[in-house]
Parts: sequence; C-alpha cells; structure tokens
Amino acid sequence: MAAEACGVPLVLSDYWMTRMTESYARRGRVMPANNRKQAMLPADAEFIDNPIGTACGFAVTIGRARFLFTPGVPREMRRMLDEQVIPRLLALGGIRGVTKLKRFHTFGIGESRADEMLGNIEAFRQEGGIKLGFQAHYPQLETKLAVRGDDEADLAARLAPVEAEVRQRLGNFIVAEDDQTLEGIILARLREAGQTLSIVESFTGGSIAARLAPLPGAEAVFKRGLVTREASGEVSREGAAASAAHIKAESGASHALAVLIQLDEGADRPDFGATICIGVAGIEGTVSREARLIGGRDWVRVGAAELGLDCLRRYLLGLPVDERIDFERH
Amino acid sequence: MAAEACGVPLVLSDYWMTRMTESYARRGRVMPANNRKQAMLPADAEFIDNPIGTACGFAVTIGRARFLFTPGVPREMRRMLDEQVIPRLLALGGIRGVTKLKRFHTFGIGESRADEMLGNIEAFRQEGGIKLGFQAHYPQLETKLAVRGDDEADLAARLAPVEAEVRQRLGNFIVAEDDQTLEGIILARLREAGQTLSIVESFTGGSIAARLAPLPGAEAVFKRGLVTREASGEVSREGAAASAAHIKAESGASHALAVLIQLDEGADRPDFGATICIGVAGIEGTVSREARLIGGRDWVRVGAAELGLDCLRRYLLGLPVDERIDFERH
Repeated sequence: MAAEACGVPLVLSDYWMTRMTESYARRGRVMPANNRKQAMLPADAEFIDNPIGTACGFAVTIGRARFLFTPGVPREMRRMLDEQVIPRLLALGGIRGVTKLKRFHTFGIGESRADEMLGNIEAFRQEGGIKLGFQAHYPQLETKLAVRGDDEADLAARLAPVEAEVRQRLGNFIVAEDDQTLEGIILARLREAGQTLSIVESFTGGSIAARLAPLPGAEAVFKRGLVTREASGEVSREGAAASAAHIKAESGASHALAVLIQLDEGADRPDFGATICIGVAGIEGTVSREARLIGGRDWVRVGAAELGLDCLRRYLLGLPVDERIDFERH
Repeated sequence: MAAEACGVPLVLSDYWMTRMTESYARRGRVMPANNRKQAMLPADAEFIDNPIGTACGFAVTIGRARFLFTPGVPREMRRMLDEQVIPRLLALGGIRGVTKLKRFHTFGIGESRADEMLGNIEAFRQEGGIKLGFQAHYPQLETKLAVRGDDEADLAARLAPVEAEVRQRLGNFIVAEDDQTLEGIILARLREAGQTLSIVESFTGGSIAARLAPLPGAEAVFKRGLVTREASGEVSREGAAASAAHIKAESGASHALAVLIQLDEGADRPDFGATICIGVAGIEGTVSREARLIGGRDWVRVGAAELGLDCLRRYLLGLPVDERIDFERH
C-alpha cells in the first residue's frame, strides 16, 4: 500500500533521493535509511529545492490556496525563502513595480527618542509615500524606510532627499546602513588605511574580538585579542587608556581598544549594573570614556561590547567618543 | 475627543504613566512626551505588567475570544509570557494535571541519527504516553521528551526509566540536560575541583572564551583568553597540544584549551571548510584531536567552537575526546 498524507498519495522523488545520498557520500557517510521519508512528496506537488539541507520543500494547491512548504531549520528556511518562496509569491500576486527597504542601524538612542528625532519629517506623513518603521534589537535600533516605486530610478528619486534628512538627524548615532555592520565598518576603515588592531577585554569575555576577528579580511588587520579576568579593584578611564596603549605597543598594532568593566556586587537582577571604562589608542593619540550601564549581567555585557566598538568607530571617524547614550545611567 | 482603537475608547493608565516616568527618572532622564501613548489602554482592559520595559501589556475579550497583548521586544515578551501570559492561559483552559518537558542537548549527532538511536523505544509508541521530539539548532541537537501526568510523582515515575534509556543510548554525545549548557557543565566541573582554565583560539575569534568567561562564578576559574590571528601555515594536533601546554604554563592555569584552525582557500561557499586542531592540557596530561568541518565560514566557526568545548568537557569527564561526529568530513 502506498504511503498517504491527508489522503494524498506520497510519491518517492528519485531526484531528491539521489541528491541526499550524494550529499551524505560527499561527507563520507552513508545516508540513514529513515531519511528516505524526506524524499516522499505528495503526488503532483511542485518540488522546491533546498541547496543546503537534506529536507527539500514542495508546493501544493488545496482548494483555492497555494501552500509552500520548507524545512524549519532557520538557516535552510531563510535561504529557501529568499531564493524559492518569495519569487513564487511575487509571481502569484502579480506584483508590479519595485519596493525598497532602506535601513539605518543606530547605537545609543531608544525607539521613542528616534521617533522624536524623525517623526515630523514631511515625507513620512501619509501622502509622503515613505513608511517609517523602527525595530529595536538591543543594543542597536534599526530605523527602516519602506518605499514603493515604478522602477529603481523612481525609488532612488523618492528616497534620496529623505535618506539625507534621516542621516543628518540621527547623525553620529548611525553606526551602519543596510547590510553593513558596526564591526564591518571598523574593519573596512582599518583595512583601507593599512592599519592593525589589538583588543583587551574582561567581562565581555572575548565577545568584542569575536565580532571582528572572524570577518573575511580580518586576518590582515586583527593582531591580538586578550581576555583577562574581571577587574577586581576599581577600573578607571586612565587604566583603560593605559591597557590600550600597552597591548598596542606589545602587539605592534597601530590601534588598540581596551574595555574594562567593574560589575556591581551581588546576584544578577534587572537593575544589576557595571562601570565601563574604555580606552582607544591609535595614531591620533589615546582617548578614554567611562559609562554606567544597567539591566542585568547579559544586558550590561552586550551593551559594553557595543559601546566599546562604537568608541573605536567614533575614534576612527574623528567623531566625539563620549556622546551620551540613552542606556547610560547618571 | 477621546482617542479610540477599533471603536474602543482608550483610557490613560495613571499607574503605568507613573511607572514609566519613574523608570526614566531612575536612569536620570525625562520621559519623551510621545511615550504617553504607551499608557493608553482600551477601556476595561486587564492590565498586564511588564517589569523590564516601557510598554505594558493588556488583555481584552472580543466576542468569545480572550486576547492578550505584550510588547514585541523579545526579552520583554519572553518574560511576560512566562510570568503573565502562560499562567492566564492555563487558568482559562482549566488545565488539570501537570506536564513536563525533559530535554537532552547533544553535540555531534544529527536528527536522523538520533531518531535511529531512539525511535524504537517502547514508551515512545502511541500508547507509551511520552512524546519524543527533536529540535536541531546547529551545532547542538535538542531531544525532547514531553509527558503529562496527574502530579509530580506520577511524572517522575513515567519519565525515570525512559530518561535512563535515552541517557544510555545517546551516551557521550549528551553535553547537557534541561537548562544546563555545555559551558556551564565545564565551568561547574572546574569550580568543584578548584581548577582554572586558559584558552587559545584563532578563527573562532574569542567566541570560545566568550562562552565561559562571562558566566557567574567564572572569575574564579577563567585565567586568560588569547585570540591569535588565523594560522597561516599548516596546523597540527601537535601544534594545538603545544599551544595548550604553553598558555597553561604561562598563565598558571591547571587546564588549557587550544583550538587552532586552518581555513580552506578562496571565498565563502556552502562547502567551504577548515581543518580544526584541538589541544587540551590538564592534570591528566595533554590530549589532541583533529577534525575537518565544512558548511561555510560561519558554520565552521560555530562548529569548531562547539567541538573545542566538547573536547574539554570529554577530557574533564574522562570520556574519549576523538569520538567521530556527524558533522565531520573524511
């Protein structure tokens, strides 16, 4: 008796069986027998390719609805969504014209403050045709401009003046745009100038170095990362500056970042905080900054790493490193 | 005219206005005026507290449905889900009895292999009353046993034999259970024995140290982390073992882990891979292991960090460090 799903007979996809078997073989392994079920598709389903996994997708029509199925593994699902699903949906919807989502990534301002800084821009009023949206993913805030137009030229013409206005209003808080990242901007800047970087960190535990060191091209820039145990005594701006200057000299890097942290006493709690001391040493001398962050151990650690990287970005771009941020506490 | 939402008048919650204002004041800031809208709730809505954010939740009944609303900030939503939403849902559903989700976290086996290792356990058949489920989040696989019972004692009695069977079958691949983490297990083991740890890593860029150093209690265990630029030449088991022995001696730690990586040439791609050489030095001498992982730069980096930590775990528990894993390529 043939296998069935919801009364629909399942048919073995020889094509997918072969693909799976080959992919296991490439990894020097034999495909487990129970993987065969991943090649059983509803009769007359449309096959949807999965280039990076053992579960393929498929599409079927039930009643008046078109159903598209993908595996749930996020990495596979996302890739299939971009390459397979969304093009099919646009075609099904007969979507004309083009759309664009312009994104600004800021660090240091909360959503309500960003809204106050941008909310009154004319183009964001209903008739303006550009939709303003925010997405907070601590420690960064994403500001999105959604626009629809007839073609690329039309999109560019609508966006250009608004982009410029947003850039001017959010100013130094913009750490990256679109697919750029804060660490990517820092790495690019150092690479272009043929400069190198070393990092000292404590409570962030390597998470600052881990943002930069693995990036393509970092091998030419990243000199050394040092993770020390948490400062037991007082941390100070002077101490952070000295640490940066020391590893810079010791590792022969042109630049160095030191992020030293003194945690509050006691157990983790919502208002658990820390004093963050940051030093940046480079060819334009050494700068330092101190800030107090709260919000629990994880919140503080993530915020401190971002603050350290942002100080380095500001140093490299000649911006003030000690501009007050919303997350700071007096 | 009073504000409305879907025809329902909105009423200002003085309580939430005060809470918001106070929370801004604690951070030495004045609440932005446009935050007032976050305290406007539908008339006769049930207030749902948000202990860690400026947007509260609320619940209303529309027709025969009870709607519960929370902010979308993941950290706030998750906490409100646990403390506010789920208890209300259970009460609404008049749920009797108790349920439990027993979780095993493994590293080194894929879902289909785990299914082969466990699928034929009797208690997982329909009548067994225990539901087996898997959730793959690379590099770990989560194996879940869902059980429902009359009370805690009943749950324990149903689970005990199955837990033992699963533990025995998945064996050394189980890195942690329930809320435990691989790094937490390693830290606890070192702490109990009054031992200390230093880490050398390259392409993982600090992400291994970042798993351990920030944990509560790590300050007594974590000695030093060193992030070096990627090995340019050949990496070897001997080299990794030597690196571990060297930082162990230099930092005065009782144990050291070295994870050295040699990446493939060329651009990132789905079959981009690397050779991972791992050395662990400790009081029982030094061990090493070599593995080849593929799947693109990010995949390799995440897999290498996990493999390194798992080798350390296995060393500390007296398990074989070179048991073959599914992600390895010949």
